[in-house]
Formats: sequence, C-alpha cells, structure tokens
Amino acid sequence: MAIGEIKELPKSWAMLGGDGHESYTQNSSYQKGVVDASMEMVDDGIMEKLDLKSLGFESTNDTFRIADFGCSVGPNTFFAVENIMKAVKHKHHAQFNNSAVLSGFQVFFNDVTTNDFNTLFKALHSNEKYFSAGVPGTFFGRLLPRSTLHFAHSSYCLHWLSKVPREVLDSESPAWNKGSIQCDGLKKEVTKAYSAQFQSDMNTFLKARAQEIVGGGLMVIITGGLPDGVLMSQAGIGMYYDLLGSCLIDMAELGVISEEKLDSFNLPLYYSSSTEIEEIIKANGNFSIERMDSLSHNIWKTSKETKIKVSVSGGRAVFQGLLEDHFGREVAEKTFENFETKLDENFSIIDGAAHEHIDHFILLKRNVN
Amino acid sequence: MAIGEIKELPKSWAMLGGDGHESYTQNSSYQKGVVDASMEMVDDGIMEKLDLKSLGFESTNDTFRIADFGCSVGPNTFFAVENIMKAVKHKHHAQFNNSAVLSGFQVFFNDVTTNDFNTLFKALHSNEKYFSAGVPGTFFGRLLPRSTLHFAHSSYCLHWLSKVPREVLDSESPAWNKGSIQCDGLKKEVTKAYSAQFQSDMNTFLKARAQEIVGGGLMVIITGGLPDGVLMSQAGIGMYYDLLGSCLIDMAELGVISEEKLDSFNLPLYYSSSTEIEEIIKANGNFSIERMDSLSHNIWKTSKETKIKVSVSGGRAVFQGLLEDHFGREVAEKTFENFETKLDENFSIIDGAAHEHIDHFILLKRNVN
Repeated sequence: MAIGEIKELPKSWAMLGGDGHESYTQNSSYQKGVVDASMEMVDDGIMEKLDLKSLGFESTNDTFRIADFGCSVGPNTFFAVENIMKAVKHKHHAQFNNSAVLSGFQVFFNDVTTNDFNTLFKALHSNEKYFSAGVPGTFFGRLLPRSTLHFAHSSYCLHWLSKVPREVLDSESPAWNKGSIQCDGLKKEVTKAYSAQFQSDMNTFLKARAQEIVGGGLMVIITGGLPDGVLMSQAGIGMYYDLLGSCLIDMAELGVISEEKLDSFNLPLYYSSSTEIEEIIKANGNFSIERMDSLSHNIWKTSKETKIKVSVSGGRAVFQGLLEDHFGREVAEKTFENFETKLDENFSIIDGAAHEHIDHFILLKRNVN
Repeated sequence: MAIGEIKELPKSWAMLGGDGHESYTQNSSYQKGVVDASMEMVDDGIMEKLDLKSLGFESTNDTFRIADFGCSVGPNTFFAVENIMKAVKHKHHAQFNNSAVLSGFQVFFNDVTTNDFNTLFKALHSNEKYFSAGVPGTFFGRLLPRSTLHFAHSSYCLHWLSKVPREVLDSESPAWNKGSIQCDGLKKEVTKAYSAQFQSDMNTFLKARAQEIVGGGLMVIITGGLPDGVLMSQAGIGMYYDLLGSCLIDMAELGVISEEKLDSFNLPLYYSSSTEIEEIIKANGNFSIERMDSLSHNIWKTSKETKIKVSVSGGRAVFQGLLEDHFGREVAEKTFENFETKLDENFSIIDGAAHEHIDHFILLKRNVN
C-alpha cells in the first residue's frame, strides 16, 4: 500500500523554499506564464470532456476532489487549482442548471517531502475557499486512495526525471555524457538513456494516477518538450543549460572542482517530443488522449535586463538545491555569479535561437473499467 | 464552505517547531505518556464500539479515514494513529475474519497553519504505511468534506482555548484577572469567563467534527481537566503555571516589563471538570458518550533533576511562542531562566501537591442521522 516504485527523491529536487527574494515563490514567473497560457485549454477541456453526470454529481453530494502533483510552494498552484474549480462550477451549472448542488471542493497539494509546505500553507490560508491538504511524497508512487480523484493536474514537473540515468555518468558506457550537463541531443546513446528514463518515469506516474483517478476523471499534464526533430542544443532553453554547464566547466578549469566531480553531474531533465509522449500514454493504456497541444509562450515581452535577471534568479530558485548538493554552497554561488555575467554576454544568442522548446499541454481522461 | 466560526489562531499558538533540543518534538514526553496511557482505552473502544459492518466495510473497498486534530510536529501523533490503525485491523479481522478486505488507511494530520508541517512530514516519511496528508487550519472550523471521516482523534489540545476571554484582561470588568496568568479557580467571575469560552470552543469543535465524521464513526478526545471540586490553584499543574506567572511578576517588579504588559497576559488554557464537559457534549447533541474516564498518569517515575529539566524544557516547547509573542524574545528567555531556578527551589511543593489534574479520556460515537 502507498508503495510506488520509487521511495523518495533526493532532497535537492525541491524548489527553493521560503518567500525571500531568491525563493521559488518569488522566481517562478516563467512557470506562471505556463499556467496562464494553459488556463483557456483547461477551461475548454472541462467544458467539453468532463461529464459530471457520469461521475455521479447529479444525485450525490460528493465533494469534487482535485490534486496538483508537483505543486511546489505557490503561488502558481493556487492560480491553477482555482481556475479548475471555476471551470468545474461553470460546467456544473451548464450540465444541471440549478437542479443539482455541487457540495464543494477538496484540493490535495502534492510535492516531494522536502518541499517547503510551511510556506505553501501560509500562502494558501489567506484566500481559502475549499478544503485543502498537503500530500508529501514523490508522485512516482501512490499518494492517494483508489478512485478518489476527479481531476489531476501536473504543471511543469514531468520533464524532471526521478534520477539521472546511470549510464550517462559512467565513463565505461557508450552513453557517457562527458563534457555536457544535459541531454543536449548530440549523442545518440545519451539521448537513448535519457529517453528510456523518461519513459519509465512517465509510465510509473501514469500507473499511480490511474489507480487514484476515477473512471471518467480528467488529468492535465503540462511538461517541457521539444518540437519533433529539434535537438535540445538548438533550442534556447538547451543553450541556457549549456551555458550553465560551461560555468561549471570553468570551475573545473580553474581547479575549483575536480574533473571527476564535474563529470559526475548531469541535470535530471528530459524534454520529450509529442510523438514520444503520445506513445508512452498509449502503451500505458489507462487513459485516452483528449487533447494534445503546445502552449504558446509569448510571455517574455520585457527588457533584456529583466530577462537576464529573471533567467538567473529563476535558475537559482530551481537549480540551487541540485548544485549545492553536488558541488557545495560556495561553488554553487560562484557558478551562479559567473552564469549571470555569461548570460549578459550571450543573451542575444540564446534569445535569438532558431528554435524554441515547447510546452506540451496534454488532456487525458481515465478509462472507465 | 470550509468556514468555521474562527478563521485562524495566532501564530504563537503553535508548538515549537524543528527538531532541535528545545523543540516540541524533543520535549513532549508528558504528552507521550498521555498517548501511551490512552492506547489500551482506544483499543478497547475500537473493539467494542466500532461497527465496521454498519460503516460498510464488508462490501466496499473504501479506505478507512482517520484524522488527528492538533497533531503538532510528531512523534506522538504517529504513535496515536498507528495504534488506531492496528486496532482497526484487529477489529476488522474479528468482525469479518477473512471474508472482507480492508483496503487501507488515509490519515489527515491537522494543526494550525503555523505548525511546522515540514518537520512533521520529514518524520512521517520514514515509516509510511498509509496514505497521509497534512491539513492546515484551526480545528475550531471545518477542515474536511462532509461525512468522510471514520475515526477522529484529538490529544491534549482542547484545553487550549481559541482565545483568552476578553473580560479577564479588562480592568473595568468584574472578571479582571489581576495578579494571575491563568484561571486559578480563586475568583468566580474569572472561572465563569474561562468556562464560557471553553464551552463555546468545545461546541464549535463538536459541530465541525459532526459534519466531517460519518454516522457510526468514533472520536477520541483527550484533554487536560480537573477532578470535580478541585481548583486549578490546588493542583500541581496549576501551581506550575502560578510559578511561571510569578516569574513574570518578578519581571514587572524589576521594571523589565510594565504592569500593563503583565496584566494584559493570560494563558489561553482551561482545565474542565468531567461534569462540565459531559454537559457540553450532551447539549451539542451530535454524539453519544461511549466512555468517559480519566487517564492514569503515573509517568513521572524519574529523578527530581530530570523532572525539573523536563518541566522547564516542556514548558518552553509549549509556551515559548506565546511568551515571545507578548513580551519579546529577551523577556521570554529571562523568564524561563528564572523559572528554572524557582522550579528547583519549589519543586517539592508542586510535586507533593495534594491534588493532581486529570486527563479526560472521552470516546464519542457520531449519531446516525
């Protein structure tokens, strides 16, 4: 019971806690843009694909239960779940007019155990209009009882892997990713190893959610991806990670860290293609794909200075834990300082990249058994 | 929805967080004794009074849902809920033998929003055998959807009031509690004001739980109380609070705090008699009293030195937030230092008090509507 394949993720997987100026709370404007861009799609999905009648909401006074998997510390999770509730109320009215009463909502906020739930709860409290609960633990495992969720949401989490594939850190393996901190797409074996890990993780996630979501319930997955045929190293985001990697290479060249230390570090991130993700969902077999789209992210309409600032502080909020865990606090600090300078020098290249990554929007419906 | 009469308690109501040497985690051995002493009563209560058949557990594969209201940061809450689960499994086996399967447990850990849930979750994770969730918010209000709980538990919380009654801090009122920081029982009007607040809070608690617990579901309440006819100032615990009060009076006499500051402070605690609590439950009308008892607390079989240490550190873990909030960190610190000396000098008086407070054990069953 409550046992998934993966017990717990490393502590450093959590976003930066608290609500200070370096926190994820204050530095997740890109992720907020993702939520904003998805809202209309979520609204449409609920209106067109959620059948409250078949879920029993005409006759029972059951509570509508929502979970956000990978909620972090807010505030994006609140925007997302409040939008879902608004759309469900709207659909309820459209489906039953006033002949049935929707008794309310219960929202489960999930993230890894080391997530800063104290900050989440503090922020939550100010405008609570629903029953809420925090659920600690990795979503690569069961978190909730069988058939209890009507709507699951996971935004900008599933391109995070449960672990870096072992082979890419193994100098004996043909998939050794020497000289890069990410799956840049330039070496077939590396891509294959990352892709296999993503496939395994995604399938684990889908299997767990399939048990938790009621037949006919919906799930929205938003995750970073790549257009078919585009390599990570060709997309702006890939260049951004390569630049971060070059700052670590600098540290090794300066002798601040050893080459072995550098070589044993890779980002646990994988940006999938829509074809790839579609195949995984189909092979899993528990969900029908109701919509698959990519989000427009024209959210970067601001000055170069602001973009650089946001890129650095956003990178810190997300990756500081990972870097500190592997290299120690001092090296992480120096790396981010160097990163800021390099971003400033190279920003036009990244900003003007021929390709952009995409954000997959996937609407799934749980099969009725 | 989710709206109780009380929005949120002051931040300082939370026990001391973290897991350091001054934390509640490390300084709640008295409360652990209370849990230990109640375990057998909980076991008996579940065996005799919980009818899993009438709750539908013969035919459905529903999850058994438990909530601990006022869980603090652990570890006592884990002992309590794990004991409940063991007893429910035992009863399930006794009632159905192997003809029905108990599909599992979901546990909701509740405490005020400022409770250190991060510490709770970290401690929880190591031996998770059930689905768990943290529920932030005051239990003097709705926290969970209607009719979703099978077993509610609240240990050593309900003698904490939602607020200090206004009158006892009001120099114009006949209930002004000048010269004391607690309801010592010596002034009728003060006792009346505290008792009225307790009655109102308890009723608010029962009303909220009545909506959350299914008909036939059980609730165990453990709360500090007094034997009928015994005044707080006659019981060891009352002397302990009076001694803490005398340390604050010292601060005022030394001019460290003003008299007004001292007079505006009272502890939000009320130790009820069993008659009083029985009347409140009966007037509320949603629950039948299945058992009312007091816990034996022969848990202090240790040296004088240890007792004093535990009394001081336990007092800090519970009251430091309150004192710092009202008097500031420095005064709180000095007060506790003074308290340690005075406890040492006066321990035999407290330890040898003619009366002891009691801990009420109350087993309730939710009426079937």
